[in-house]
Amino acid sequence: MPTFGQWIHPVLIVLSIIAIFFALFNFGSLKKLLVGHPMRSRELQSSHTKLYWLIALPVLAADLYSSVAYGPEAGITELAPLGIDAKWFILPITGATVILLGMLITSYIMGVIAYPNGGGAYAIAKDNFKRPMMSLIAASALLVDYILTVAVSVSSGIQTMGSAYPALVPHETLLSILCVLIILFVNLRGVSESASIFAWPTFFFMACMILLIATGFGDEVRHGFVQPTTPPFGTVPQALTTMLLLKAFSSACSAVTGIETISNSVPIFREPQKRGAIKAYVVLGLITGVTLLGFSYHLYVQGISVNPNNTMLSQLTSLYFGHSIVYQIIMWSTFLVLILAANSTFTGFPQLAALVAADSFLPRALTFRGDRLGYSNGMIVLAALSTLLIEVFNAQTNALIPLYAIGVFVAFTVAQVGLTKRWLRVKGKNWTVKAAINSFGAVVTALVAVIFAVTKFTGGAWIVLIVLPLLILTAVTIRKHYNQIANELRIDLRTMRPGSHRVISIVLISGINRVVLNAISFAQSIDTDAIALYIGFSDESIERMEKKWEEWGTPCRLVTLKSEYRSVLYPLARFLQRLETWEGGKPDHIHVMIAQFIPKKWWHYALHNQTSLLIRAWLLRNKDVAITTLPYHLQD
Amino acid sequence: MPTFGQWIHPVLIVLSIIAIFFALFNFGSLKKLLVGHPMRSRELQSSHTKLYWLIALPVLAADLYSSVAYGPEAGITELAPLGIDAKWFILPITGATVILLGMLITSYIMGVIAYPNGGGAYAIAKDNFKRPMMSLIAASALLVDYILTVAVSVSSGIQTMGSAYPALVPHETLLSILCVLIILFVNLRGVSESASIFAWPTFFFMACMILLIATGFGDEVRHGFVQPTTPPFGTVPQALTTMLLLKAFSSACSAVTGIETISNSVPIFREPQKRGAIKAYVVLGLITGVTLLGFSYHLYVQGISVNPNNTMLSQLTSLYFGHSIVYQIIMWSTFLVLILAANSTFTGFPQLAALVAADSFLPRALTFRGDRLGYSNGMIVLAALSTLLIEVFNAQTNALIPLYAIGVFVAFTVAQVGLTKRWLRVKGKNWTVKAAINSFGAVVTALVAVIFAVTKFTGGAWIVLIVLPLLILTAVTIRKHYNQIANELRIDLRTMRPGSHRVISIVLISGINRVVLNAISFAQSIDTDAIALYIGFSDESIERMEKKWEEWGTPCRLVTLKSEYRSVLYPLARFLQRLETWEGGKPDHIHVMIAQFIPKKWWHYALHNQTSLLIRAWLLRNKDVAITTLPYHLQD
Repeated sequence: MPTFGQWIHPVLIVLSIIAIFFALFNFGSLKKLLVGHPMRSRELQSSHTKLYWLIALPVLAADLYSSVAYGPEAGITELAPLGIDAKWFILPITGATVILLGMLITSYIMGVIAYPNGGGAYAIAKDNFKRPMMSLIAASALLVDYILTVAVSVSSGIQTMGSAYPALVPHETLLSILCVLIILFVNLRGVSESASIFAWPTFFFMACMILLIATGFGDEVRHGFVQPTTPPFGTVPQALTTMLLLKAFSSACSAVTGIETISNSVPIFREPQKRGAIKAYVVLGLITGVTLLGFSYHLYVQGISVNPNNTMLSQLTSLYFGHSIVYQIIMWSTFLVLILAANSTFTGFPQLAALVAADSFLPRALTFRGDRLGYSNGMIVLAALSTLLIEVFNAQTNALIPLYAIGVFVAFTVAQVGLTKRWLRVKGKNWTVKAAINSFGAVVTALVAVIFAVTKFTGGAWIVLIVLPLLILTAVTIRKHYNQIANELRIDLRTMRPGSHRVISIVLISGINRVVLNAISFAQSIDTDAIALYIGFSDESIERMEKKWEEWGTPCRLVTLKSEYRSVLYPLARFLQRLETWEGGKPDHIHVMIAQFIPKKWWHYALHNQTSLLIRAWLLRNKDVAITTLPYHLQD
Repeated sequence: MPTFGQWIHPVLIVLSIIAIFFALFNFGSLKKLLVGHPMRSRELQSSHTKLYWLIALPVLAADLYSSVAYGPEAGITELAPLGIDAKWFILPITGATVILLGMLITSYIMGVIAYPNGGGAYAIAKDNFKRPMMSLIAASALLVDYILTVAVSVSSGIQTMGSAYPALVPHETLLSILCVLIILFVNLRGVSESASIFAWPTFFFMACMILLIATGFGDEVRHGFVQPTTPPFGTVPQALTTMLLLKAFSSACSAVTGIETISNSVPIFREPQKRGAIKAYVVLGLITGVTLLGFSYHLYVQGISVNPNNTMLSQLTSLYFGHSIVYQIIMWSTFLVLILAANSTFTGFPQLAALVAADSFLPRALTFRGDRLGYSNGMIVLAALSTLLIEVFNAQTNALIPLYAIGVFVAFTVAQVGLTKRWLRVKGKNWTVKAAINSFGAVVTALVAVIFAVTKFTGGAWIVLIVLPLLILTAVTIRKHYNQIANELRIDLRTMRPGSHRVISIVLISGINRVVLNAISFAQSIDTDAIALYIGFSDESIERMEKKWEEWGTPCRLVTLKSEYRSVLYPLARFLQRLETWEGGKPDHIHVMIAQFIPKKWWHYALHNQTSLLIRAWLLRNKDVAITTLPYHLQD
């Protein structure tokens, strides 16, 4: 017998597809239950409250700070094949990561100064480059990264839970997908990203990490800074290559992703906004740096090894606290903050997608606000794509990280180059220093991006290097299409006005019954010359129809056609072709009317001939005819 | 990085769903390529050629005879936990299976005598029981079994290939699903089940099995009938229970499934038909019996053990022939005959479903013949459900067999009881003997069905015992629905005739452009009082529209509505409600016209607002209004 997991998996995939269609096409009570009552457009303005910087800091920090849960681990994983002698390298690698973090924060503070209304790499690039190419590079890198953030954060959160409760391990993929769906529905209901309630889980997680690091030092003070489990320091394993070190560094750098959040959200700070945002950046950078260094140091001292079913954070915590309640609390807090990181992406991705779509580079549907004023379509796309990634990668975070870091650093680079250009153009106070900081930042982030692309190329980076250009190409094609359509539809109001047209009306009938009675009455009311068209599959059925029609008093002209191939499409198409030359030249419009059953219960649709749907779809696609559907609501 | 299999799996599921929709909604050139040109209805009569019994025998035997490849193995698998001492029990168990086979063949020969035009359990039950319950039991059992036959035969065929080429083992599920899809497309193209070309693979497989058994005896003559590997005979392991023995017996009985094929297809025999069918039954029974006994005997002598990645047939063959070309040929021949068994089901299932649907017990769409004159919808349903089973059970035949055998024996029992009733009613030559044979058969098959249900209950039989009643309930509900609809639609031709109705016409517009120009021209041509309706999301957009409308010379009356919730549905619904009491009382029809873009390329649909689709779907479902779609074919 298949296990629960085997049953549930394909079923879940099918259910998600149905759910997405449902979310797109819904107008029922179930949607109201899940998503809530619709909100008025003007409610949009009233929802923003400004936050004090110390509260805004954790609200915006989940994405960056939660990365400490997987960054150092990702670095150590790369070095694992070299054995115990290579373990100490995590210390210089983390050091380099923290230096990079400091540099990025300095650069982003420049961003805050330049764009106090919230910048983001796309807006910065749009503002500073004439051609759209750079902003498209930034946008596609960021969009891909948002998708990866959801996949990585959620998988990592579930892996944390799996470490605490090993019974969950076989179901990690399933649980991750469920998490994404729950986050999706919460966001479809609408959550204000800036609600101060989101501050507390991140604060709490920061406290947990500080506690963990402090306990570690306490332990080392008592038992010595070199313990029996501590790997040797300074040894250089034979198999170590520069390539491997760079690989480990680029994996560890996944810890600095999410740094852009504050600069995107300056407007949510209380006045003085700029100063608040800068303070938040500095403090966040300090806390994150200390956490990364302290955490990595203890991992080294305790000689923690890679275990796919037990995260390093979990191993270290259980070393200090056993499987006590403290351990449980730290694990839950880690899970919560990782879910929050994924959740914040459900605001970032749809907003960016809407910005790009407003510039005609993505389908316009991404700019529509849903019932709860969020960009629902963007959220659904994000959930669908990240679910696909989780499914394909079986919720294994490490496999996703190489894909992740490249995009972030590509976007960083574009933003820094844009800022540098801005300083050179705008000048202003201390512009040379600012330009120097950003141009140096641009060089470093570009270098890091290249290192990632090269070292992780075979590990999956090639996917990103294919996806990004494809996305950009698609964006350019979409804009071209929209422009052409706009030209095609434009008319001159003074010269082109509606006129009276000749219309030929046809009612398709399949017999004589209450539905047909209704259809013919309608057709005759709008056109007294309407023609009834019957398509039979045999000579007998046609004769029977003609006889019945006479019995009925020939309410209008009846045309019968025989279909030798049991399809009504071919004879109908031939008939329409004939009409175009039939009586008095080509008519301006051909008007086809079709009756359709509307059953009371949805599953009754499966019991009724859906030929009318088929005919309608075919005619719409292939013929230039007006098609009227005459619904007949069944009583049962 | 995920493996090829991980990538391909979800992708394949999505592709199959698309393929099914495609097959249902198709009218394109790809369909012609895959399915072939449509055929005329009258070509149906000319396709039957009658076969000599010796050719008809293998054509109809694939389903039954191919079961020897998995039947004995299924029996031994149940005994495996008892160890080597229980292995000899396969001999009495196979003996009992062969006796059951002989009895069933005798019973089915009675069926041939009674229904020379092809019976089948459903037809026999329909003919002999007044109430539809018995025939519905037979039909649902058989339909479920056809689905399981496809799943079991295809998985077993792929397992055979996996035994020969171990590299395939990790991809068995994927390959099985691909096989089902290929069989589906071959059948959508249309294959005549009675083509004599299907005789040769089965003949060849029979020859292979005889060769294998003969080689076995040769080996035993040379090396002794008791070999070092031969398990002890006559020992009774402590853990052996009657339950376990019955379980092994019921698994081994999967070898007799498919026995009904000949009795369903008497008309394809050359005259004298009855005599030919009876000869075929006797010879087939003899060959199958000999094969089962010989195969099981050698399995015992060689002490073959269960190995999920190497079928017993493969193990025995490689013992005699090594991994030589003879081994390869036998494996390929086994694969081919198992695929043929699945293929024959693609005729049986849709035919039975069409029969049941013609009696209004299943959706009528199952009675429509596709372009190539087969019942395409039935084929698609069969492929979809068997694919689902293969996916859920990961192509493990043994897990499916308990589900399989119950349904077969339930259907056997219904058929035998029906035949007994017939002999009691019709009498005729030797009717007492015939009635005795069938009533004895009924008792035995009923007993076997009960044994299966009890012994395999926890192993999955409960699923069948839930599915069968559900299917029957559904069938009864469907018939009731069809009857009620027929009553609702019936009209009196003499008194109820079409009349002239009052129609209010509304054109929905979203601005002024070429599409709107066309829509208003059409609307004014069929109703000079048509109203243009504009729904805006803000006061400014409404003012702008009204101004532009005046500039355009007010071609018709314009009504503007404001939507506070960014949805056009709510204001539209309110407007329609108002119309019903607006001017001069409720109109007979409200006629809503909507323009719709038809892009040239399918992916352009994603770029255009699908609001018109949404509005149409909502109106059809909730309002009694005629809805006209005015297509506008984009040039780009």
